[in-house]
Amino acid sequence: MARAVLLLSGGLDSTTLLALVTDAGYEVHAMTFRYGQRHAGEIEAARSLAAAYGAREHVIVDIDLRIFGGSALTSEIGVPKDRDVSGSAHDPAKGGVPITYVPARNTIFLAFALAWAEVLEAWEIFIGVNALDYSGYPDCRPEYIAAFERMANLATRSGVDGTDGIHIRTPLIDLTKAQIIRRGLDLGVDYGLTRSCYDPDSNGVACGHCDACQLRLRGFAEAGISDPAPYI
Amino acid sequence: MARAVLLLSGGLDSTTLLALVTDAGYEVHAMTFRYGQRHAGEIEAARSLAAAYGAREHVIVDIDLRIFGGSALTSEIGVPKDRDVSGSAHDPAKGGVPITYVPARNTIFLAFALAWAEVLEAWEIFIGVNALDYSGYPDCRPEYIAAFERMANLATRSGVDGTDGIHIRTPLIDLTKAQIIRRGLDLGVDYGLTRSCYDPDSNGVACGHCDACQLRLRGFAEAGISDPAPYI
Repeated sequence: MARAVLLLSGGLDSTTLLALVTDAGYEVHAMTFRYGQRHAGEIEAARSLAAAYGAREHVIVDIDLRIFGGSALTSEIGVPKDRDVSGSAHDPAKGGVPITYVPARNTIFLAFALAWAEVLEAWEIFIGVNALDYSGYPDCRPEYIAAFERMANLATRSGVDGTDGIHIRTPLIDLTKAQIIRRGLDLGVDYGLTRSCYDPDSNGVACGHCDACQLRLRGFAEAGISDPAPYI
Repeated sequence: MARAVLLLSGGLDSTTLLALVTDAGYEVHAMTFRYGQRHAGEIEAARSLAAAYGAREHVIVDIDLRIFGGSALTSEIGVPKDRDVSGSAHDPAKGGVPITYVPARNTIFLAFALAWAEVLEAWEIFIGVNALDYSGYPDCRPEYIAAFERMANLATRSGVDGTDGIHIRTPLIDLTKAQIIRRGLDLGVDYGLTRSCYDPDSNGVACGHCDACQLRLRGFAEAGISDPAPYI
């Protein structure tokens, strides 16, 4: 049984990824971060989902990204609502990186995943990044992932001794949100258990207007299915 | 005044780096990690040194790398003593990575430095890695640093918009330990304030026999100077 480290946020994409990787027969070691996000309810969702899918282990890593500030997800900066989330409106190469971008977040997450993978001798790290229906974060693009993988293989014992290489796997990267949802539904994912909203109310109910909610709702609409998650 | 993020462990190399970067006129934002290392006395040394050199800021980041295990520096695995620390004995490409290697540690440290640099709009990150008199860690090699820099410029807003690039600076990388010590002494570094030992006693006094002590003592011997730090 091949081992995989999987970054699990508790959102729609990473939960679909968990279903895919579990279905493919991997022994899943799931990793979630408590990083000071205002939408910390996703951590409880991740815990339930990891258990539901029979992950071999689930670790919750405490890191405090609030010390840096600079993002609406970790500070008092407001989360933008009702932004245009269609394709080129936020091409990162055209300056479209939004304020919800958390500086170097995926690099930090993947660095921890790399450390764990090395100790576990797991040669595959799965991350649910998507470069089509996404918020224009630079660290979701295929060229970033390829550069991380190359770096990872120079960083570690496993890369250096040549016996095995670390692979960063991104099976969702070129799917639309609607395709991701259809894939998940085929595997029986209950999207009512997932959390995507950047700015939920105090009961964890989604706002329906942040980028994450808009992308999710548009995905369900395109898939011709209603989103089972509650909205304010 | 150019801003720099500088990784400061409180050891000989990073303290020399701090002296060099301060002397070069940078505004220094120093970053130290409390990661579960057994030699946590280095954190207090780092705090004193950052203050002594007038760093603009010094943050101590709490991350717990003990959750992964796999290293003598963060677990109950014993620190090896009196190993051969001469050049080819621990070429990482020849399987010489020692048990004191902490999986992906420099990748995690540099990922946090990258996040901070992006928020500060500091385009230079300094790290005191050395690929000559070192312990054979894969993440100290020039090819690793180059790959990290390339990844960093794809990961971040600052890299993507093309206005500024992130640079990972390693001015000590091809110096011998003796050369590093001489450079530091020219700048007035008090090496009695630095901590290098992986396995100090309960008072923080160095063991004299771990790789870090051996490399340090050999460096002082080659420089023809006695090490002002106390040893057991």
